[in-house]
Amino acid sequence: MRHFAVELEELNQAILEMGALVESTIHCSVQALVDRDERMALRVIEDENRINQMELDVDARVTRLLALNQPVAGDLRLLIMALKINTDLERMGDLAVNIAERAISLSKVPPVKPLIDTPRMASLVEDMLHRSLDSFVKRDAALAAKVLPADDEVDSLRDRIYSELLEVMQLNPTVVPAAIHLMFVARNLERIADHTTNIAEDVIFLVRGIDVRHHATENKV
Amino acid sequence: MRHFAVELEELNQAILEMGALVESTIHCSVQALVDRDERMALRVIEDENRINQMELDVDARVTRLLALNQPVAGDLRLLIMALKINTDLERMGDLAVNIAERAISLSKVPPVKPLIDTPRMASLVEDMLHRSLDSFVKRDAALAAKVLPADDEVDSLRDRIYSELLEVMQLNPTVVPAAIHLMFVARNLERIADHTTNIAEDVIFLVRGIDVRHHATENKV
Repeated sequence: MRHFAVELEELNQAILEMGALVESTIHCSVQALVDRDERMALRVIEDENRINQMELDVDARVTRLLALNQPVAGDLRLLIMALKINTDLERMGDLAVNIAERAISLSKVPPVKPLIDTPRMASLVEDMLHRSLDSFVKRDAALAAKVLPADDEVDSLRDRIYSELLEVMQLNPTVVPAAIHLMFVARNLERIADHTTNIAEDVIFLVRGIDVRHHATENKV
Repeated sequence: MRHFAVELEELNQAILEMGALVESTIHCSVQALVDRDERMALRVIEDENRINQMELDVDARVTRLLALNQPVAGDLRLLIMALKINTDLERMGDLAVNIAERAISLSKVPPVKPLIDTPRMASLVEDMLHRSLDSFVKRDAALAAKVLPADDEVDSLRDRIYSELLEVMQLNPTVVPAAIHLMFVARNLERIADHTTNIAEDVIFLVRGIDVRHHATENKV
């Protein structure tokens, strides 16, 4: 049996590598949308396989570490959080693929309007993900806590995008299909922000042993 | 320390109870939509708190069982699957709340068209969830495997709903807001089906020790 600490560090690295790929995937999916770049969108879709493999790898590492050791306290929390962060990252990868698919559909129709606040919403979401992963690397609960309020900002940007798109569609029915795609892109970005929030909450739990989901009271392991 | 087997059985029961509540929540959210019943929709929204508390409870049970025992093989798999199924169920509860919120919005505007295939899609999704929870109760991988193909049927129903709604919107721009709500309802039902598929895959892993996600090769614990 290899040393537990070494394997934990490898797990940590595997999560960070997966996080970096998911970050780049989200960035490229939105870039493909803005630049109407079908090839970039296709690369995002191809990356999904790598992300899925990484998810299986992280789960297998956690299962092995739980089976061969008796981790307690902080180490046990890390393993449980690894499973959760893994699920969140994989799901963000799926959402980026959905954005990329919509970018391809949108690249085939005339651009009806600037993309409203979509790029701004995307850069806010990317920043949230970057900071939540950073808080995981540094095991910094204060940094993680700072990610949470941005979720409200994302939600209000999404609401603004929705109402602008509704207006556009009602004025000009021919743009309905394109507007629907943009609406789902906003929805996907909002979901990515939710998963980012999950990661930040997990980091807080990891560091402080306090479950902040659903405004839970202290819930120490 | 209480007997491990007793605590495992209690965990099992907690998951089933949560599953039953999520099932009824999904059913009521769609019923509220069909009957334009705002009160029923509000009850769904209230139930979210109970589901969230159940999620925290299941996580706490798993963490305690992992910390105080050294589960291996089947028991370890059960605990890891419990964490995953827990996340899926909680997320389905969120999606049901979103359907209920849209049911409230829709109950305030004139019904523009029958709800197309939405009720049919919903009953298919409810059936998937029921069977996947049943396969968990019975630890029946064959039953779980039978849930998986229904996901394709759900996806094609969603595609049909999307294109019918697109057509309706382009013919009559005044129905755009209502049609958008129905589109997101279809999207939410499709996502619920995805989570149901996750549960079925988890049951297969639990029983057979084989990870069938992403068409993974055998991945025994």
